[in-house]
Amino acid sequence: MLLAYVAIGGMLGAVARYVLSGVVQDGHTFPVGTLSVNMIGSFLLGFFMFSAEYFGLFSQEIRALIAVGFLGSFTTMSTFSYESFRMLMEVNYLGFVQNVILNLVTCILAVYAGRVLALAVWRLHP
Amino acid sequence: MLLAYVAIGGMLGAVARYVLSGVVQDGHTFPVGTLSVNMIGSFLLGFFMFSAEYFGLFSQEIRALIAVGFLGSFTTMSTFSYESFRMLMEVNYLGFVQNVILNLVTCILAVYAGRVLALAVWRLHP
Repeated sequence: MLLAYVAIGGMLGAVARYVLSGVVQDGHTFPVGTLSVNMIGSFLLGFFMFSAEYFGLFSQEIRALIAVGFLGSFTTMSTFSYESFRMLMEVNYLGFVQNVILNLVTCILAVYAGRVLALAVWRLHP
Repeated sequence: MLLAYVAIGGMLGAVARYVLSGVVQDGHTFPVGTLSVNMIGSFLLGFFMFSAEYFGLFSQEIRALIAVGFLGSFTTMSTFSYESFRMLMEVNYLGFVQNVILNLVTCILAVYAGRVLALAVWRLHP
């Protein structure tokens, strides 16, 4: 049952996000905790999805566990949106723009970097 | 232990995301599944966080369960980034811009709508 793999991955991804974003956020006011998990999760998802697509790696179960469950839960759009909205409320427009652009640009570039790594790794070790 | 609440919420949030985004996505090419869970999750997080902040509702455990666990896992930045990057790869620049702007604008507006609802609901039923 694929749902069980999604559930286990989701559980682990949420815990990993909570721990890592807490450690990174410590002592900062800018929401670097959320940025870091979003960036890392997007990088890993790019690596995973292009490894699957180009090299036929990973079963449907492993995809449900890692891509949908773990990495889907490790990253978050709701906290990013809430933190961005708070900056608007606090009339911190510069912070708002920085947060939006940083998350968008780094996450999409991270997917690209994950694709580059997948192409490099699996061609070296076929 | 707060981590257990995060884990249970994360498990349920990932499963809910998988099911709902699958149902919404069915038959569409534009990634409306991801957009829908990101929008709904941001709305619920806005409602939850401002209910907690303005009206002192919800214990630390419930916050770990709902906000960090469930809603953090229900929404996703990595899938959004991956789907946006795919549109760039497919030279679908219009789709890319639409996806980025729709996710950003609707999710931040959804947090605002959640705040409006929190102010309306808890003032009516103190």
